[in-house]
Amino acid sequence: MNDSNLSKFGDVLVNFLFSAAYLGSKGLYDGFKVTNHVLMQALNNSRFKAPPRSDKHQRGDYVEALIAKAWGRLLTMDEMVSLLSDSIADADMGSRESSTDAQIRAFTVLLDEIYERASGEQLL
Amino acid sequence: MNDSNLSKFGDVLVNFLFSAAYLGSKGLYDGFKVTNHVLMQALNNSRFKAPPRSDKHQRGDYVEALIAKAWGRLLTMDEMVSLLSDSIADADMGSRESSTDAQIRAFTVLLDEIYERASGEQLL
Repeated sequence: MNDSNLSKFGDVLVNFLFSAAYLGSKGLYDGFKVTNHVLMQALNNSRFKAPPRSDKHQRGDYVEALIAKAWGRLLTMDEMVSLLSDSIADADMGSRESSTDAQIRAFTVLLDEIYERASGEQLL
Repeated sequence: MNDSNLSKFGDVLVNFLFSAAYLGSKGLYDGFKVTNHVLMQALNNSRFKAPPRSDKHQRGDYVEALIAKAWGRLLTMDEMVSLLSDSIADADMGSRESSTDAQIRAFTVLLDEIYERASGEQLL
């Protein structure tokens, strides 16, 4: 298993998870490309430790791989979508800035749930 | 419901569907961006009629919207992934050309199944 390919799968997964959560929460179709900035900030806010001396791109890849590994093992697709959906339910996502903030908060919640179910990073 | 936003959701959905099908069939992680070329060719090969005087981009958007509308209504996520997965099971996807051909065949199968379940285009 190649970590770069795992991140590529995670990138596609993460975009779908957030788009499905947005549909579930707001009742509106849209397609989101969740950025490395969002994933890096969520990692920094979460209980996971970021890889040392990693840049934004590497932290984004790390989160994508982490969510890909957790998907189907620690949380089902529906659980992931529900967590994200619940956490943006009250969020104003009308501007790019407020949408980015809501995405960061939502992925922080998802990462912390993964952390808890994994009982720490070692299991992943 | 905005058709352009439905296509944007469909774009994210289609990328995930094919990536999950690839994982299911080949046991390998990767992230696919399914192109308008693939979706247009699948549309042309399927029983659906393409919108008149539409270009590649419009046909890609049309297929993305179509799959988004069918998702959860006519076929479950798992059914969509299984159909795509089965249809690439024996495909060599080692080169870009063979991968493109396999993707076109797989999405043709999915579109024809949607067509059949919708009993024609009118229901969608």
